[in-house]
This record gives sequence, structure tokens and C-alpha cells, in this order.
Amino acid sequence: MKYFLPKGTRDFSTNELIKRNFIIKIIQKNFKLFGFYPLETSSFEKKSTLDGKYGEEGESLIFKLLHSGDTLKKGLSNFLNKINNDKIKNLSLLTNFFSNKALRYDLTVPLVRYIVMNKNKIIFPFRRYQMQPVWRAENPQKGRFREFFQCDADIISSFISLWDEIELIKLCDFIFNELNLPVIIYINHIEILKGLVKIYGIKESLWKDFIISLDKWKKIGKNLVKKEMLQKGISITSFERISDLLEKEKNFLEIKNFLTSKFKSIKNKIGEKSIKDLSIVYETIKNISLKKIKIEWSLSLARGINYYTGIIWEIVPINNKNTKYSYSIGGGGRYSRLTKLFGMENISGLGLSFGLDRIYLTMEKENLFKNSIFFPSKILFINFGYEESLYTYKLMNILREKGISNQLYPNNIKIHKQFKYANDNKIPFAIIIGKNEIINNKIKIKNLKTRIEKEYNDINDLIKYINMY
Amino acid sequence: MKYFLPKGTRDFSTNELIKRNFIIKIIQKNFKLFGFYPLETSSFEKKSTLDGKYGEEGESLIFKLLHSGDTLKKGLSNFLNKINNDKIKNLSLLTNFFSNKALRYDLTVPLVRYIVMNKNKIIFPFRRYQMQPVWRAENPQKGRFREFFQCDADIISSFISLWDEIELIKLCDFIFNELNLPVIIYINHIEILKGLVKIYGIKESLWKDFIISLDKWKKIGKNLVKKEMLQKGISITSFERISDLLEKEKNFLEIKNFLTSKFKSIKNKIGEKSIKDLSIVYETIKNISLKKIKIEWSLSLARGINYYTGIIWEIVPINNKNTKYSYSIGGGGRYSRLTKLFGMENISGLGLSFGLDRIYLTMEKENLFKNSIFFPSKILFINFGYEESLYTYKLMNILREKGISNQLYPNNIKIHKQFKYANDNKIPFAIIIGKNEIINNKIKIKNLKTRIEKEYNDINDLIKYINMY
Repeated sequence: MKYFLPKGTRDFSTNELIKRNFIIKIIQKNFKLFGFYPLETSSFEKKSTLDGKYGEEGESLIFKLLHSGDTLKKGLSNFLNKINNDKIKNLSLLTNFFSNKALRYDLTVPLVRYIVMNKNKIIFPFRRYQMQPVWRAENPQKGRFREFFQCDADIISSFISLWDEIELIKLCDFIFNELNLPVIIYINHIEILKGLVKIYGIKESLWKDFIISLDKWKKIGKNLVKKEMLQKGISITSFERISDLLEKEKNFLEIKNFLTSKFKSIKNKIGEKSIKDLSIVYETIKNISLKKIKIEWSLSLARGINYYTGIIWEIVPINNKNTKYSYSIGGGGRYSRLTKLFGMENISGLGLSFGLDRIYLTMEKENLFKNSIFFPSKILFINFGYEESLYTYKLMNILREKGISNQLYPNNIKIHKQFKYANDNKIPFAIIIGKNEIINNKIKIKNLKTRIEKEYNDINDLIKYINMY
Repeated sequence: MKYFLPKGTRDFSTNELIKRNFIIKIIQKNFKLFGFYPLETSSFEKKSTLDGKYGEEGESLIFKLLHSGDTLKKGLSNFLNKINNDKIKNLSLLTNFFSNKALRYDLTVPLVRYIVMNKNKIIFPFRRYQMQPVWRAENPQKGRFREFFQCDADIISSFISLWDEIELIKLCDFIFNELNLPVIIYINHIEILKGLVKIYGIKESLWKDFIISLDKWKKIGKNLVKKEMLQKGISITSFERISDLLEKEKNFLEIKNFLTSKFKSIKNKIGEKSIKDLSIVYETIKNISLKKIKIEWSLSLARGINYYTGIIWEIVPINNKNTKYSYSIGGGGRYSRLTKLFGMENISGLGLSFGLDRIYLTMEKENLFKNSIFFPSKILFINFGYEESLYTYKLMNILREKGISNQLYPNNIKIHKQFKYANDNKIPFAIIIGKNEIINNKIKIKNLKTRIEKEYNDINDLIKYINMY
């Protein structure tokens, strides 16, 4: 029988884990530096908790757990009695016969559910980080998997302070500086996007279509966006006016002044406030001296328009030729609606999320992992038989107590085969204690790369030698 | 709407995570010290990979993932066409209509599956550790959950060396020594148990029943075991003879000699070899000086009799009054049959597994966590408004670069409310930089516990002061 992994899932071998953990540790360290507390939630939630939170498309990608035992029997029996083949079309209703639990789809909904359940214990503003896998039944593609690891930092608060936005963006700066990966952060504001719809006289019913096409500006280019917009029923005049504006995007001040006066003239207070908020964040961040990241206002950026309600941002890596990658490795934004869905009024959330796989992929491409060498074992003790091994075992223990990892080859096969095992496992040293060495009270150590052998009487000298490596 | 977690699942808040990670880190560190490599596998497997590996009862506890999209439609339609209510009894066959994926039930089957899939890349003996959650649809009880975390170290090898058993038990010694938790390790051998059945003339068909009852000797006592064995059809003579033997259990040498001669007399070579192997492991471990653990041969110990094939052990914690707890916190053993089930001949596995929750529970009871204090933030910067915060932000960055975690209160509310936030979050210091401090180029820091305030001109002096804490 041949064995396979389910579609879109992966195992991680040591080599991959070393690099993954290198990234995870840097992210975690900086989450802590910025005063975020760790939280972990259950891998599966009640289905009812996730229902209605991700839109129709998102919901279809949630992995549901099949009932078991008597609950399954009952569900199947009810299904047989009530349903015929015609009704199978509407799956989302039918799944309730078979499942009431589902795997985590993201880390934000579990966070909000956690806060609702623990609101009397939690101190607001609540700064938490969470680093756990999530699952989505998407069609696997390069860099997109059905199980993937998210690293989130969120601030949940009873008031909105732009310092929270500034903190989370500065946090990106610390992280990408330590990862040595240059990135550009595009920021925008959901309410500015909604305001554009009004300024350019786009039909209310088309606002989502408009924004979704607009977001592709940087990815597919002006001409394709034009085609898409016209197909969707947006007028050529509207398109041309928005296009003129986007061409000037790089000039922050000009756009800011232009939109402010436009919003004033149509008496759009929310639009006006959004421009002001975005400017404060943008200018303050410029003021607090960034280490590794660049920041740019991108008027075409839209993400999570069902989800976010305020400032949003997206993180795009830059390669060593100073060109931007075509994908993002993280992003964030303010969400007030989600907390309302859970029945919490006057609570606003601000979240930052990194996709580990995309960061990994980029760092691999940019060759940024070079220094992460790892020796699971530093020493292989050669096995010459039971008596010698028993003698040698004491030294193994002493070295382990000093933090030097080692292992005994479990059998006294030919010595060159034992060396081969060490080499194949990238173990740099072998310690050779046979009958002669025991009699002379010596420890022989061989550097398996240089083939240099040394002998020691004193364990402390031996440890010094090993630790030099 | 009220929100709940699914039955048997948990969230982990900061306080719990600090303690959980304290245990996890110690286990992981020692796994590495003993030359084990990390491995992580996918959270779900093909159902067919798990089928037939855990026995009927185990299989019924596996969480299956419901098909989605078109696959689900097809499954439902097939189910409707082929099944009527009478056939719902046999669930294990029916689930194939609805599912072909299942959540990890343990870490050993995924390990063996991984090895089969990668056998050309893997260097044997293969020492790997894996620390990930597993899921079982058991009825939740105290200390037993539907999602729990396992920490495993395994050696997969093409030959059997008792040094592997010795290594894994010594590894327990390092771990429990560092956790400061005294434990007793009971060891036994599956083949000795099978041999007892022959020595005492117990019917072949009753051997599993006999061993399962025997295992309860230490837990429910002689009288209840007697009752159980007689009910199962084991003769009173057989019971009394085994009982006599168990009374002498503490005398390792006597039992060893007695059983060896018995096995010789019935020409049971496997039994004889098992006694010899167990003695070598037992005596070698006594010889290599244990730090924290005690080791005892327990003739009544049986675990995983469908699963293990050689030496087995179980780890039982000891409380501060030197009494044993009634549960185990881990165990291990040799398995050769599992690798065969996957079509790998002549490969033997030896595994050690810790249950994080039980270790946590015990350490909590024994009050062993006292030193694990944790400050998510060491400093709260008091917010006096935009200008002051912008000024102060530079100092925040410098301190973060020095590894000192801190945060700014995001709003300039009354100062005593900001202090309250710090106190509630166990943040030990507040830094107060208002207009006066800016003019005088001073940094005011307040120890929130002692209420002592200090002023600094020099950031390095400030850092020294903070780091003293």
C-alpha cells in the first residue's frame, strides 16, 4: 500500500522546522517586546460560533468535523427521513445533520469569542498574540495550503486610538528588521474607499465591485482594471476620474488636500475624518524613524471589505534588486463590525497577521537563512560493546549536563559505519573510547570534517575544545 | 447569544501558557540534548492511513472531517440511494460516504507513515521528537480532554539495541530532574506477560483478559483483581499462584531467577530472552546513576498490549509525602508490529510519550511552578497627549532594542487610570514624561509596587536600573 498526505497538507522535517522556528521566534520575541500577551485557543469551535462570520465563500471553506457515535446515528437517521436527492443542493443547511463543530478558520474569530466568554476577567485595552495553525479547504496552490500557520497580534479596546495603528506598524518594522527582509507597507482606509464611490458618483449597488477591481490596480494594471470596471457597469467617466487620481498617488500631500476638499464639498464627515486619521498615522510613522520598512499610502488598496472598518495595511516584500514581490506576506486593519456580530458594542479591534509560509518562501528566495545552522547532536559516541559503552555513558551524561547534545551509536558495528551515520546526520564530532583509552584514562575526539583527532585527560579541556566549534 | 467551547476543549490564557511552555521547553531541550531531531506532521491524515491501527475502540474515537463541496454532494446522494435506516448501525462503514480525512489520534502512526513515505531520505537509526496536539472524541473527564498535547521521542531502527531503551529512560531522568518532579518508572516486558500465561496454564483465549486484569493490581488491589479474574474464567489456582509471585515483586533477583528457570523448564526461549533483556536494561540503568527517577520492575504492568512487542514502561509521579499518584504522566515501549502494518519489515520502533496535561496538573498540585514569573510588559509609558507621546516613542524604541518590553497607554486618560491598567496587567514600572520632563530632559520612572520614583538623564543609567529588577 502506498501512503500519501491529504491534498494541501505537509510534514515538516528538521531542516524546514529550523527555518520555520527561526521566523516564529523572531515574531514572538517582538510581540512580547511590544507588550502582547500569549493566547491559544481550541483547534475546533462550535460550528455556530463560526457561522455568519466569513461570508458565503469563506464559510464553504471551513472544515467541519463529522459527528461520531450516537450523534452521528441520529443525524443520519434524520437525514434519511427528511431529505431527498432534490434537496442536496443547499449544502450549508444540510451539514447541520452531520456536524456541529468546525476547525479554526482564522485566529480573529476565536479571539473575539474568547473575549466575549471572558469579558469580566479581561483588562482592556487587551493586547494579545496568538500563533497557531488554521485550516481552510481551499484548492492548494503554490504557497497556499489547507493547513497553515498564522501569527497574529491584536489590540481590543473600548476606544479607538491611532497609537494602536502606529504600534502595530512599528512592530512590523522591528520584525522585518530582525528578519533582515525589506518590505513596503501600503496603507489605506476603508472609509476613504467608500468615500471615493460617492465622490465619483458610482452606484451604491456597485461599491463592492468597484473596490474589488480597484484593489487589482497594482497587480494587474490599469488596462485590465478598466476592462473589469466597465464590464461591471461602472461608467467610463468614473473610471477616468479615478484613474487620474491614482496616477498622482505618490504625492501624498496633493491627494490628501484634494480628497479633503472633495469630502468637504459633499459634506462627507466620515471621509474627511478618515483622511485626517490616515495622515496622522502616516506622518507619525515617518516621524518615529523606521528601520527596515517603507510606508506608502495606496489609494487602491482594499482588503477584507466585509470585515475591516478603518485603517488597513498590507505588507509586500522587496527583493534584493529593489523590486516588489507580487504577493503580500501579511497585513492588518481595524475591525469594529466583528465585535458587534458577537454582541459587544463599543469595542473595536485592531489586528496584524503574518503568514508564515509566505515569509518562509520569500526568505528562502532571498537566501536569508544562511546563518541558521543546527546540530541536533554535536557528538556521536562510538560503540565498542557493552562494557565500553557503560564506561562512556558517564561522560555522555556529564556533557549533556553541560548542554552539549550527544548520542551513543546503539550497536557495535564497524567503526566506519558508525562514522557514516555521524556524517549523514551532520554530527561534527565523534568520541572514541575503546579498551586502550579506558586503560589510559584518555578521551579521544575526532573532528569528522577535518579528520583531526585529539586526546584529552581532563573533561573540562574537552568541553572547552567542543565549545570552540 | 451565549458562546461556548466544544465539549472537552480549552483555551489557554497567558498564565497557563507560561507554565505549559515552561514544561514544553524543558522537554524539548532534553530531547535535543539526547540527539533527537524535530519533526512535525500534518494535523489531519487520510482516513485510510489511520484505519486498522488503533483497534475498534480507538477507531471510534477518531475525529473525522466532513467532506465539503461537490464531494459532499456526491457522498450524500450515494448515501441516500444505497442506505436505509436499518443499515445505520454499522457506523464505521458508513463514514466513508462522508469523510476520507481524520484528525491525528496520536503521534506514532503519523511518524511511521512519514517514515514509509520518506524511507529513502531517512538515515537509520532515526531519532525524532514531535510535540503537537492530538485529538480523541473521548468523554471528557478531569485531566482528560478531546484536544491534548503530546511530547514524543522515538527511535526507529533496523536493529534492536537495548541501549535505545536505556537512552529513553535516562532521558526521562534528565527531564524530571529539570522539572524537579520525582517519579517512579515501572518497567516490564510484553513477552514476560505472555509467558506468565503459559507458566500458569491460563487458556490461550483468555490471555488478553488476564493481562488487562493483572495491570489493575496496583490500581484497584488484589481482591478486586481476583474477583475480575474469576469472573473472566481464570481458575482460582492460577490466580493464587500469580498472586504469590506478585507479593514477592520487590525482590528483583528472586523473581528473575524463578521466572528464568520456569521459562527454561517449559522451553520458552522468548520468555527467557525477555527476562534477560529486562535485566540488562534494569541493571544498566541502576549503574548509570539516576538523578531524579526511581526504577522498579512491575510484573503486573501492561500497556498497549495490541501495540507494544517488547519492553514497556510507565511513569508515575510521587508527591511531597513520598506517595505515588494514581495516574501515569507518560510511558513508552517497543513496537515492531506497527511498522509491519505499514509494510516495513525488519524495522523496530521504540517510543517515549509524555502527556503535557497530566504533568501540568501534577506540578500545579506539587507547587513546582513558583519561579516562572513573566512580564509581558516591563514598562507602561504614560500618555499625556500626542506631542509627549511622539517624544517618548523614541525612548520606547531604544528600550525595545535593548530587549526591554514596553507599551504606551493608547489614550491620555487620567493618570491614575493608566496606573490601574499597569497594575492590573502586572506591569512593574511606569515611565512618566510630561511637558516638565521634556523641558528638563529627564526621564521619570515609577516602581508601581514600592511607589518609589526616580529620575534619570542618561538612558544607560535608566536601563541599568530597570535590568536590576
